[in-house]
Amino acid sequence: MSSELKPAILDPANTDLKVCALGGGHGLFATLSALQLLTNELTAIVTVADDGGSSGRLREELDCLPPGDLRMALAALCDRHAWDGLWPKVLQHRYESQGNLGGHALGNLLMVALWQVLDDPVKGLDALGELLSCRGRVLPMASEPLEITALVQTQQDEKIVRGQQHVAKANGRVKDVYLTPAEPKVPAATLEAIQEAEYIFMGPGSWYSSVIPHLLVPELQQALVSSKARKVLVLNLGTQPGETSGMSPAEHLRVLKKYAPDLRFDAVLYGEEDTPTDTELQQTLAEEGAKLYSQRLHSATKPQVHNPLLLASLMADLFNEWGRNCH
Amino acid sequence: MSSELKPAILDPANTDLKVCALGGGHGLFATLSALQLLTNELTAIVTVADDGGSSGRLREELDCLPPGDLRMALAALCDRHAWDGLWPKVLQHRYESQGNLGGHALGNLLMVALWQVLDDPVKGLDALGELLSCRGRVLPMASEPLEITALVQTQQDEKIVRGQQHVAKANGRVKDVYLTPAEPKVPAATLEAIQEAEYIFMGPGSWYSSVIPHLLVPELQQALVSSKARKVLVLNLGTQPGETSGMSPAEHLRVLKKYAPDLRFDAVLYGEEDTPTDTELQQTLAEEGAKLYSQRLHSATKPQVHNPLLLASLMADLFNEWGRNCH
Repeated sequence: MSSELKPAILDPANTDLKVCALGGGHGLFATLSALQLLTNELTAIVTVADDGGSSGRLREELDCLPPGDLRMALAALCDRHAWDGLWPKVLQHRYESQGNLGGHALGNLLMVALWQVLDDPVKGLDALGELLSCRGRVLPMASEPLEITALVQTQQDEKIVRGQQHVAKANGRVKDVYLTPAEPKVPAATLEAIQEAEYIFMGPGSWYSSVIPHLLVPELQQALVSSKARKVLVLNLGTQPGETSGMSPAEHLRVLKKYAPDLRFDAVLYGEEDTPTDTELQQTLAEEGAKLYSQRLHSATKPQVHNPLLLASLMADLFNEWGRNCH
Repeated sequence: MSSELKPAILDPANTDLKVCALGGGHGLFATLSALQLLTNELTAIVTVADDGGSSGRLREELDCLPPGDLRMALAALCDRHAWDGLWPKVLQHRYESQGNLGGHALGNLLMVALWQVLDDPVKGLDALGELLSCRGRVLPMASEPLEITALVQTQQDEKIVRGQQHVAKANGRVKDVYLTPAEPKVPAATLEAIQEAEYIFMGPGSWYSSVIPHLLVPELQQALVSSKARKVLVLNLGTQPGETSGMSPAEHLRVLKKYAPDLRFDAVLYGEEDTPTDTELQQTLAEEGAKLYSQRLHSATKPQVHNPLLLASLMADLFNEWGRNCH
C-alpha cells in the first residue's frame, strides 16, 4: 500500500493519479462519475460509432463524429459545483418538440458547432471541457466516424447486423464484430493519454458496441497492450438484453481476450456483495492473473446501473492497495 | 464635467455607470460593442419580434421568444478576452449544412435549450450571460413573442405588411406600425433596469422593426417616459433600403416622437465629420431641446456601419460632459 496515496484519496481534490477510462454511453458515464471523485487527471477515450438518435442524424447531416457518447462523457466530468449544476443538465437536455429539433441533445449541437468552428475534434472537445469546467479530458477513440458490423447467430441462421444501434439490440448471439474503416486514424492525444496512464479502465457497458470497439482499432489495441498502466476491467451488473443475453461474467472477459489476446488485465471489479461463488469466473481470473475486487455496486433503485459512490469506493480500495504506477 | 467620471472612462474596468441600450439586430450590436468599452453596468433591452431565419423557425417550432436578437446582444457583451474570443464566434456560428440545422445559429439553439430547462426567459439569458462572462445583462423587451404589422404606402396603394422580416424590407413608405399583442407583458427586470438607468440609448437600427417597437409596448413607453435617465438617440448612418428609404435624420426623430410624444431626448449622436449643415435636423433638435454630438462614426470599410471605437469615443465625450446621473 502506498502511504503517499492514501491521503490523496481521502482528499480527492489533490489527486493527480493519471487514469484513462475507455468506453461509451451509460457504462462510461458510470465509470467517469466514479473516477472524477478520485482524480483530476482523468481522460475518457470514447467510442465514435453511434449511428442512432440525435448523434446518427448529426453524423449524417454534417459528416462529423457522432457527438452523443462524447457529450455524455463531458457531462460526467462537468464540475457539479460550478454553475449550480446547470450545465450538465443543459448539455444533456433534449428539445421537447415534434419538429426538426425534437430529440436533439443541446450538448450534441454545441459539440458539432465547435467542431465546425475549430475544425478539429480534439480542440472542440477541449474547448467544451474548459467551458464546462470539466474535471479531466474527453477524447475520441478515432478521428473519423466508425461503423460497427456484427455477425449474429440467431436460432434459425446467421445474419449480418450493421450499425451500433442495431448491434446493441441484436437478437441472437454475436459471433463476430468488426469496424469500418478497419484501420481508422487515432488522435495523437488519445495515444499519448494511454501511454502516460497509470491505470486504464475498460467497461462496463454494451459489450460489443461500446467496450470491444476500442480493441478493434489496431493502433489503439497496440497502445493498450504496450502501455505500462495497470489495466482494470469493470464487469456489467447483469447481461444486457440483446447483444450479450445469457453471457456469463467470465465470457465477458474471454470475448475481450479473443479480440486482444496480448492484453492482460490486472484487476476485475465485480458487483457482488459476497465473495463470488462463480467458479468459472474464479478460474478465468486465475488464468489471467487478475485480482478480483468485489462488493455491492448497484444503485438502490436500478439493479443494473452502477452507483458511482460505491464504484468509487471499490476503485479507491484498489488505488490504495496498488498505489501509484509512475513509469 | 464630472471630475469623478473622467478617470473611470480612462479606466473602463472601473466604470459603473448604469446604462440601458434599447434596440435589436446589428444596430444594437454596434451600440453595445461601444458601451461595453465604457461601463460594466450595461443592460440591453432587446426586441422579440423577429420572425425570419433561424429565430423564426425556432419560434414556430418551440413556441418561444425569437432568440436571434438576444443572442447577438449577448455576443456583443461577451468578454473578448475570456476563452481567447472563441465563444462570441461560436455563439454566432451558423451550421454549414443543407439539412435541418442549416442556417441555425448555435447561440439560438443554446438559448432555447436554456429556456426549456429553466422555464424563464430572463433566467435563461442570465445563465448564458454568466457562461460567456458577459459584461452586462441582456433582457427581452417583452415576455412573449411579438408580431409587427405595418401599413405601407406604395406608389399604387396602401398595403398591410406582417412580420418583422417583411416590414424591414417593405418597399414603400411605412405609414403606421403596430404590435400583436398590443399590450404584451414586460419582465419586471426590464422595467427595473429602465428605472435605475442613468443613461438610456435608442438606435441605431432598422427604425420601424428594431427601434420603434419598444415604444409600442405601453408599459415600456411609460417606463421610458417616467425614467429620470438621460435619453440619447443614436441616428443611423444612412437610410435603410426598404422601410426608411429617403427619410431624413430629422424625420427619424419625428417618427419616434409620433409614437411617444411625451418622450424627450437629451442628446442625439450623429455620424458627420463636420458640423452638420442639415437645418431641418438643427431645428428639430432645437424644438426637442436635445444637444447634438457629431463626429465621423462609420467604419472604414462599411460606410453604413458604426465603428464601435468611434462611437465609444463620442459616448465618452457625452458621459464626461454630462457626468453621473444617480437619482
